[in-house]
Amino acid sequence: MSDYSVIVIGAGISGLKATADLCAKDVGSVVCIESRDRIGGRLNTLTGLNGKYDIGGSWHHDTLSNGLFLEEMELPENERAAFVFDDEDTACLIDKEIGVVKVEQLECLKREFEKYVEMKYYESLDVEDVSYFRLCVEFCYKRRQLLTDEQLFRLPQLLRHIELWHGVDWYTLSGKWSGIEHNGRNALVLHYDKILARIAKPIYDKIRLSESVTMVKKLLNGKYEVITDKGKYFCDYCIVTVPQSVLTISCEDDEQVRVEDDAKLRARISFEPPLNEDITEALTTKSSFGSLGKVVFEFDSVKWSDECSRVLIAHEQPKNFVETMRSATDLDTAIAGVEQLLPKSLENSWKNPVYFLNLAKNTNTASLVALIQQPVTEYVETLTTDEVELFFRPVLNKLLNSLNSQDYVSDLEGKVQQSDAPILKNIITSNWSSDPFSLGAYSACKPGDDPMDLVIALNVGQGNLRFAGEHTIMDGAGCAYGAWESGKREANYILEKLFTGSDY
Amino acid sequence: MSDYSVIVIGAGISGLKATADLCAKDVGSVVCIESRDRIGGRLNTLTGLNGKYDIGGSWHHDTLSNGLFLEEMELPENERAAFVFDDEDTACLIDKEIGVVKVEQLECLKREFEKYVEMKYYESLDVEDVSYFRLCVEFCYKRRQLLTDEQLFRLPQLLRHIELWHGVDWYTLSGKWSGIEHNGRNALVLHYDKILARIAKPIYDKIRLSESVTMVKKLLNGKYEVITDKGKYFCDYCIVTVPQSVLTISCEDDEQVRVEDDAKLRARISFEPPLNEDITEALTTKSSFGSLGKVVFEFDSVKWSDECSRVLIAHEQPKNFVETMRSATDLDTAIAGVEQLLPKSLENSWKNPVYFLNLAKNTNTASLVALIQQPVTEYVETLTTDEVELFFRPVLNKLLNSLNSQDYVSDLEGKVQQSDAPILKNIITSNWSSDPFSLGAYSACKPGDDPMDLVIALNVGQGNLRFAGEHTIMDGAGCAYGAWESGKREANYILEKLFTGSDY
Repeated sequence: MSDYSVIVIGAGISGLKATADLCAKDVGSVVCIESRDRIGGRLNTLTGLNGKYDIGGSWHHDTLSNGLFLEEMELPENERAAFVFDDEDTACLIDKEIGVVKVEQLECLKREFEKYVEMKYYESLDVEDVSYFRLCVEFCYKRRQLLTDEQLFRLPQLLRHIELWHGVDWYTLSGKWSGIEHNGRNALVLHYDKILARIAKPIYDKIRLSESVTMVKKLLNGKYEVITDKGKYFCDYCIVTVPQSVLTISCEDDEQVRVEDDAKLRARISFEPPLNEDITEALTTKSSFGSLGKVVFEFDSVKWSDECSRVLIAHEQPKNFVETMRSATDLDTAIAGVEQLLPKSLENSWKNPVYFLNLAKNTNTASLVALIQQPVTEYVETLTTDEVELFFRPVLNKLLNSLNSQDYVSDLEGKVQQSDAPILKNIITSNWSSDPFSLGAYSACKPGDDPMDLVIALNVGQGNLRFAGEHTIMDGAGCAYGAWESGKREANYILEKLFTGSDY
Repeated sequence: MSDYSVIVIGAGISGLKATADLCAKDVGSVVCIESRDRIGGRLNTLTGLNGKYDIGGSWHHDTLSNGLFLEEMELPENERAAFVFDDEDTACLIDKEIGVVKVEQLECLKREFEKYVEMKYYESLDVEDVSYFRLCVEFCYKRRQLLTDEQLFRLPQLLRHIELWHGVDWYTLSGKWSGIEHNGRNALVLHYDKILARIAKPIYDKIRLSESVTMVKKLLNGKYEVITDKGKYFCDYCIVTVPQSVLTISCEDDEQVRVEDDAKLRARISFEPPLNEDITEALTTKSSFGSLGKVVFEFDSVKWSDECSRVLIAHEQPKNFVETMRSATDLDTAIAGVEQLLPKSLENSWKNPVYFLNLAKNTNTASLVALIQQPVTEYVETLTTDEVELFFRPVLNKLLNSLNSQDYVSDLEGKVQQSDAPILKNIITSNWSSDPFSLGAYSACKPGDDPMDLVIALNVGQGNLRFAGEHTIMDGAGCAYGAWESGKREANYILEKLFTGSDY
């Protein structure tokens, strides 16, 4: 049998949710086709020496309004994934020179900055978007009279924490869309595999793993032909849940793709007819894709303080930053001056901020998880494990020192060792940016982008060709629960179409 | 001469600004009539033993968008009032039993609560307003599964800090309008008398102090007759800047007022014709007035820690609060249970939160300033100085103890003493609630109010009868700069009317 009511492309959380909701009603036949050899997409729980890690999405964000979280809360405790609110304390800021920086008096300025951005772009729709970098310098410059030297020096270090939310650095991040509204606390999920298994359980027999869709073709009779590397299928409705990054290369013409590397070719889907103009334009001119990466450092046992659950390693701030800001005669001079002081660089791990989760506090595990951003991610994900260790060693030791520990001892070869110092036993590095089925982490905005355009175009869809995923929704964009909601939305859309006028 | 182009009633900051802006243009004759023997209205700088205190408004709020602050910043430093950002650190929370409470892990919940309120009332215009008290209990109840016992116990203590923004207690404060958006940090002004003097300087000869307006009457020729206790005047335009509280009693008919106390009678203005229906309805059914009070405690010298600039004294939280919340089977039970545990009370100073400014940190002064709310304010403002000292002694000593000091020694009679303990030399208590020309502090919202109604009605005005003041504006409502902006607005309105078609 190859004729289906609905074919869902992708078994990430949006595809699983759509499939499950469709199957829960008597909708006819449904199949969910997944390229990878596992379900979950950008939710992926790996097991290391010390336990499990979500190397992709790992939080319940917005726990006041997160539908997936609220659904979990309705379940008996043993059926839901455990979680820990890990943003109840303020993240530590660690500076290369002085170690732990007192951030209390900076948090207030961070809020002032966020308000400044909000007010600037709410004033009118025509206010020009600029990079987050320019916006940070602009704020510091305009308020410099009201900032102490210490505040002026530290604030950019703290403001860059936002890079680790979006997965792109401040030079490439949109200022206008940099703000993140938190609808409630964030809970670290322990772990997403449990949630995925729960959603997938009733539909395991509907999922085909390790099968790649290469073409979706609309036929004259209104049906769709879905061609994979293993065969062909027909359906009335097709829900495409591949990442925005993969969808984008589907807009590029064959000629263009041929000269690209194999990775891209492997994931690309050809659409016939091509994706419509609204979708294509939004994908290629108004949307971007970031690359949040993770590096897990596993140690023998916890030999550092578990007081702080999250640590922001600050970029190395040039000594004459304050002087540059104070002596600038106008904003452009200030920006040019700071650009010169802080050129883009991957030279070492002090050039860009790194965000560490101290799992000693969160889960009593002897592991530290680094979050990194584009372009650091692309770089680090190409390194060997030894190179990764070398790259992070300076910041990792500074972090450990700041948490009252000595420098660590590396033992990646597993020679039995004893030491008072933390012994690094294993490193796990994400590979989202080189993975052909993700090509990065999740949607992000670069200056001039407008995420609404893509969301609207993909919500309208293209007839019975539907779209779901974190990039197709505003509330929960970039989040697991947003993807989950979008799967629910598309299942509902099809159910309403199918059952209009019937009992449904 | 008694015939004016414009008469401004009230020499608070809105009246002063309106007068100054009118006089800066060649608008004809202007007079500003003020009941009190001083300018400034609810901005009032008093001098005590240790220095000056703004016993009324005392901050530049919203320093990103505060027009008055930004104007000050354009002046040479010696011409503007000094100020200190005093919200850069987190306020301490002090509990009767344990002293200083670690609030870091509660601040995150405070933000979650604020978001909860925002989301609840943004959902639809029809969501019923309830008291801030009910809203706090509702949040704690609904999220109780996600709160530790400690969080559940402490959160209501922390959430009540908002009472000291609005000047009313949580039972009488509107939940819907409780949120405060901060457009930038808050700066304590040192002091407002300097700003007032600057604004008033060019118009001192236009201000008549100690003269009370009793009636404003529209004449058949379109002019207004303004009758005071000293004479009568005529004008083309009249700007009424009396507080909302005073305006409200002008809506009550004579019969009703006669039975009220003298205080009210002294400030009332009769309008002929009466204030229109929109204004009257908004004043009497959709608007309320709070009563933020201040008590300054002056000591001989700083014998306590200056680490924390602001301290919230928490209300005494009953031991079985958590049990009551956890055992409640529904929200109504929870609310009824908490109401029983926490009845309204003025029995002692532990029954309601008190907010202290530690001027040792802010201005290196040996003074502590208590901010209090309705109904505490009305009560305290009727006490003798000795009674005030007795009332606050318990919380004041707990505060001093928490700041590493011993109990204070009272020396209000000024006998020369020496002591290692702080010696209380003087107490200054505000009297806004009994002052006939303020009858409280500033506008506030009680459940069911809608501040927009009054702002719209007073912005429309009543022909050439215009209104200004903190209660006539949305951005900056309740703030000095809001009042100032409203004075500017009304001056502009009249200037545009007068000069339409001319060079202006």
